[in-house]
Amino acid sequence: MERLFYPKVVAVIGASPQEGKVGNTIMKNLRNFSGTVYAVNPKYSEILGFPCYPSVLKIPENVDLAIIVVPAKLVPKAVEECGRRGVEGAVVISAGFKEAGIEGAKLERELVEVAERYGVKLVGPNCLGMINTEIAMNATFSRVAPEKGRIAFLSQSGAFILAVLEWSKRNGVGFSKVVSLGNKAMIDESDFLEYLAKDDSTDVILIYMEGVEDGRKFMRVAKSVARRKPVVVMKAGKSQSGAKAASSHTGSLAGSYEAYRAAFRQSGVIEASSVEELFDFALLLLKYRKAGNLAILTNSGGPGVIAADACDQFGVPLANFNFETIRKLKEFLPAESNFYNPVDILGDASAERFSRSLQILSEDENVDIVLAILTPTAQMDFLKAAESVVGKNAVCCFMGGESVDEPERILRSSGIPNFFDPVRAVRAISVLRRYSEISAKERVEEDLDVSVEREKAEEIIEKLLESGGRVVGAEGLPVLEAYGIEVAPYGIARNVDEARDIAESIGYPVVLKVVSPDVVHKSDVGGVKLNVGENDFEKAFFEILSNVEGRMPKARIEGVLVQKMVDGGKELIVGMKRDPQFGPMIMFGMGGVYVEVLKDVSFRIAPITKREAHEMVREVKAYRILRGLRGEKPADIDAIADLLLRVSKLSLDHPEVLEMDLNPVKVFESGYAVVDFRMVLGEEV
Amino acid sequence: MERLFYPKVVAVIGASPQEGKVGNTIMKNLRNFSGTVYAVNPKYSEILGFPCYPSVLKIPENVDLAIIVVPAKLVPKAVEECGRRGVEGAVVISAGFKEAGIEGAKLERELVEVAERYGVKLVGPNCLGMINTEIAMNATFSRVAPEKGRIAFLSQSGAFILAVLEWSKRNGVGFSKVVSLGNKAMIDESDFLEYLAKDDSTDVILIYMEGVEDGRKFMRVAKSVARRKPVVVMKAGKSQSGAKAASSHTGSLAGSYEAYRAAFRQSGVIEASSVEELFDFALLLLKYRKAGNLAILTNSGGPGVIAADACDQFGVPLANFNFETIRKLKEFLPAESNFYNPVDILGDASAERFSRSLQILSEDENVDIVLAILTPTAQMDFLKAAESVVGKNAVCCFMGGESVDEPERILRSSGIPNFFDPVRAVRAISVLRRYSEISAKERVEEDLDVSVEREKAEEIIEKLLESGGRVVGAEGLPVLEAYGIEVAPYGIARNVDEARDIAESIGYPVVLKVVSPDVVHKSDVGGVKLNVGENDFEKAFFEILSNVEGRMPKARIEGVLVQKMVDGGKELIVGMKRDPQFGPMIMFGMGGVYVEVLKDVSFRIAPITKREAHEMVREVKAYRILRGLRGEKPADIDAIADLLLRVSKLSLDHPEVLEMDLNPVKVFESGYAVVDFRMVLGEEV
Repeated sequence: MERLFYPKVVAVIGASPQEGKVGNTIMKNLRNFSGTVYAVNPKYSEILGFPCYPSVLKIPENVDLAIIVVPAKLVPKAVEECGRRGVEGAVVISAGFKEAGIEGAKLERELVEVAERYGVKLVGPNCLGMINTEIAMNATFSRVAPEKGRIAFLSQSGAFILAVLEWSKRNGVGFSKVVSLGNKAMIDESDFLEYLAKDDSTDVILIYMEGVEDGRKFMRVAKSVARRKPVVVMKAGKSQSGAKAASSHTGSLAGSYEAYRAAFRQSGVIEASSVEELFDFALLLLKYRKAGNLAILTNSGGPGVIAADACDQFGVPLANFNFETIRKLKEFLPAESNFYNPVDILGDASAERFSRSLQILSEDENVDIVLAILTPTAQMDFLKAAESVVGKNAVCCFMGGESVDEPERILRSSGIPNFFDPVRAVRAISVLRRYSEISAKERVEEDLDVSVEREKAEEIIEKLLESGGRVVGAEGLPVLEAYGIEVAPYGIARNVDEARDIAESIGYPVVLKVVSPDVVHKSDVGGVKLNVGENDFEKAFFEILSNVEGRMPKARIEGVLVQKMVDGGKELIVGMKRDPQFGPMIMFGMGGVYVEVLKDVSFRIAPITKREAHEMVREVKAYRILRGLRGEKPADIDAIADLLLRVSKLSLDHPEVLEMDLNPVKVFESGYAVVDFRMVLGEEV
Repeated sequence: MERLFYPKVVAVIGASPQEGKVGNTIMKNLRNFSGTVYAVNPKYSEILGFPCYPSVLKIPENVDLAIIVVPAKLVPKAVEECGRRGVEGAVVISAGFKEAGIEGAKLERELVEVAERYGVKLVGPNCLGMINTEIAMNATFSRVAPEKGRIAFLSQSGAFILAVLEWSKRNGVGFSKVVSLGNKAMIDESDFLEYLAKDDSTDVILIYMEGVEDGRKFMRVAKSVARRKPVVVMKAGKSQSGAKAASSHTGSLAGSYEAYRAAFRQSGVIEASSVEELFDFALLLLKYRKAGNLAILTNSGGPGVIAADACDQFGVPLANFNFETIRKLKEFLPAESNFYNPVDILGDASAERFSRSLQILSEDENVDIVLAILTPTAQMDFLKAAESVVGKNAVCCFMGGESVDEPERILRSSGIPNFFDPVRAVRAISVLRRYSEISAKERVEEDLDVSVEREKAEEIIEKLLESGGRVVGAEGLPVLEAYGIEVAPYGIARNVDEARDIAESIGYPVVLKVVSPDVVHKSDVGGVKLNVGENDFEKAFFEILSNVEGRMPKARIEGVLVQKMVDGGKELIVGMKRDPQFGPMIMFGMGGVYVEVLKDVSFRIAPITKREAHEMVREVKAYRILRGLRGEKPADIDAIADLLLRVSKLSLDHPEVLEMDLNPVKVFESGYAVVDFRMVLGEEV
């Protein structure tokens, strides 16, 4: 990968002297490149002063990287020639591949085959190209080249890169590397992420993402990268998947954006909800890594209050000052000032008063960052103020128009962001806390601390599949039991005598439920009797049978489930669905209205760690209910976490289990019991 | 008020020739004023070319408006002279009044007294001044004067105005009127709002607000203004009040920012959550009033998807095109284009392709606004594209840097906003829906359609107060009954025989509850027995008495409440608290965890209309539960609304009722019953 980003010799296959052509723009963009550039085009011997050859095979020295802009159908041949010439990497800018329909997809497969045969690393196709500012390589057809900086930017949209490069130029934001991912035929975001983690010239990684193909690879890589460098993602296509989701009961919750959100969270990737946030977060993370307590310093009460409100909203803690700090401030600030946080040095404050206050606040060990808010009063010299901020741990809100331009440049040169809107400033600052939580997480490669009988479960599942079961109810309970999951005591009876034996061994009252692969909604056909006692047992048993036979005469009745009637406890729902990108996703929520009405659920991608299992429980709003309200005893959270871990393990071990619904699970002060269960079996997706 | 904004002759009392002084800056700022300016200062006969007099009394012609910048203690005399000279309005810029402590407050009272005596309308004191761009009057000490525009801006922070004026200059945003409210000793935001509603040069009103003194006046005025012109408020000081709130049970919910939010909502004021939003909303509302369906038109898939996501997030509906539209688009767009919403005209689109597509989308009657997103591709000419947008109902995201400057000016000249971030653009557009709902609301001055026995309630409350009750329980139920509020059948008994008589007349089982002004937490001292049947009645009755006597020997026991045990139904909580600014605030929520854990409550300021009562019920997330889950019968929503209306009326009629808690109220398929009640009586706040 190193050679892709740091080539010494670059060839542009499809270079052109013709103004406006992509092959021309790229040649122009490479004029500042620190290495050697060759043009490849059979029609010319020289383009824009660069030597031109009819084929990459004819170039007299070794080529490290080829930029390919010839028509799609010529690309495989070009890559083959690259391979024969020993070129290590090729950026295929040409479009007309997978994105263009069936023919294009075929061509793309051919292209990948050729590249793999010769060991050529492929970027794209259908991309804008790539940039490495460190060696002044702008191998894109963007009209604007970015300045040097320490942000790496991966984007699934080439046009978005064009926009960002123009915008960044205007706003003095620089980049280390920029990669247009294109169709990701060979190298994807995860591969680049892995490389960028080790890239010394990159401090923050931004990704514009529409989707990943291999979600689990992305998570694995992101998890290790994010701890070293912040990874901020802007995810597009959230709503579409939201719409997709409006299907079945739990399905309406487990939309695929939920999978992305869970994946980002679990792998420590920070999600930005807008383009503005993407870059605001980047600017903050470039300069600061540690979250901490904020001191607000202002020459104007109103904006100070606005900032304090925003701190409350975005969870940014306000610092409590040392007495010493307040004493020092009182020494020279007017009596009407506010000496506590936010510190208001009043409208008649000069730059001197500001910088003295700033100095004092910076020296307080309880203060990590100072948010300096200044309005353009007659007494305030923004330039002097900006100079005094340089070198401090500060974020600025110099609120003004043209008078801020020059001060902003000064601030920018030392990496201090400036915002007009205090709310936006605080929102940006809030990313530091998110990242510090990510980087603080120790990488504990916990083995799932649960012992299970995997093979036993495998056998049961196979039998169920053989007997044609796809939607499986009580017959599937042994699978849960093999994984050490507690199920309310039960047995499956083939006749009333067996049923009575079971009931007597587990104790009355019991629940009776028909067991049939053909009956999905058992209650609807009278196939369920709750709270059955000793006296009405026989009556209930036969009622069930006659109900089901009466209403669904063709249903195969395999028996009757006799289950202990579970009293008390709190209802939980635990579910699992398979996401096409990320694999099994575990859901947790409190039963009834919490899931159905309030959508109060949490998601994680399996495997989950013990910590994540606990997080899942704590994350739902109803957690306070589990913890116990008004002196009530708390529910057994450890047991729930253990249950989640086992469900996670089961999902990973048995890809034939497509979905599971443990609904309800009753949790008690001690332990829990699965009361009802449903799973869908089938071919792995 | 007209004379304040449109004076012909202005005098600056405290004018100064000395550079840097406020009295100098104001004179400079008035140089462009279309009327006549006089300086007042005993030391000079001329300042900056303006004639100067030792007193306003000496000015040879009638003065309409005085700008006062002399030291605080001289202001009352200056205003007195204004009064004697017949000056109609005075803007007091000088500080040193209420904001400066007790002495200042005294001076401010004196000032108001003088002004009232002479009928001088007072702006400020302690303010930045005021601006009317229509007559080029900049009577502030801002260094920057705004351009003409159709936004009026009221601000409680002078410094915030300074910042906004600088920023607006840079961003080409103009203002009609700008007023720095200062201490609002005489004229407050409501007065200005009332005036601006009728001001022909103002289309949108923005307010930066820290707090209002007379909340009910603000609501009354805002309600009538907002229907004619959008009023957008940025409220500061939200979190402080949030912190205040962390007190008692319902108290922790009914913080005073909740009162502001309810007031804004009820009066049709739009709240902006950041400075950015404040002006984004204003720009949209200046150009468009009707909400509607959005068409997204883009030359780049990614940003189009981002915008579609944002539409989902902010509730902006995407238009469904006519077949005709799609047919026309297909006529000339490349086959790979997306012809549905978002319309993607591909990366190689020219300005011509863009403008043709825009034209077609604009002609579709299902499209109200087109969001035009363009990235800076080589083929796209932003200038031409901008020209084709002019005159269309569009909002733009021309995503770029310097190349957008000139196009942006073209767009701006026809009022079309341009944003870099599609998310921000859609968020801004979402304000149109909010405003269209406000302006569509018919002004129905419904009389509360509830008949009540006001005097009877008055008598009961008086008696309760006479007997020393402050926190009142069951003894207060007759007050609810006088207001036609349904209470679970009950009686208060002084001995066991009476108790049994009551129980027999209402039917067993019953609830027994001690009645004592001294026992607040009745359950805690064993003063409550639930579900008491005929057989255990006597035992339960005496147990209560002995429990309370045993644990609180000094408590005055006034009797025992015998109440019908209410089975089934859903639990509601209805509450009332008095807000110091806005008066009685009504709270509604579903009982138990919904209020306590999930804070799922709605608030309105009394009086509420029938529509608002229904809104309160629909607004809580638990509404779906009231409506009935899974075929369950819905709760009697009309009855709940009726209950809320009666509580609202009770609160307004009886200011001695400081707080009420109807908790729980049980609601059924038909009707409801108040089960427990508590109110706090006292002097009106």
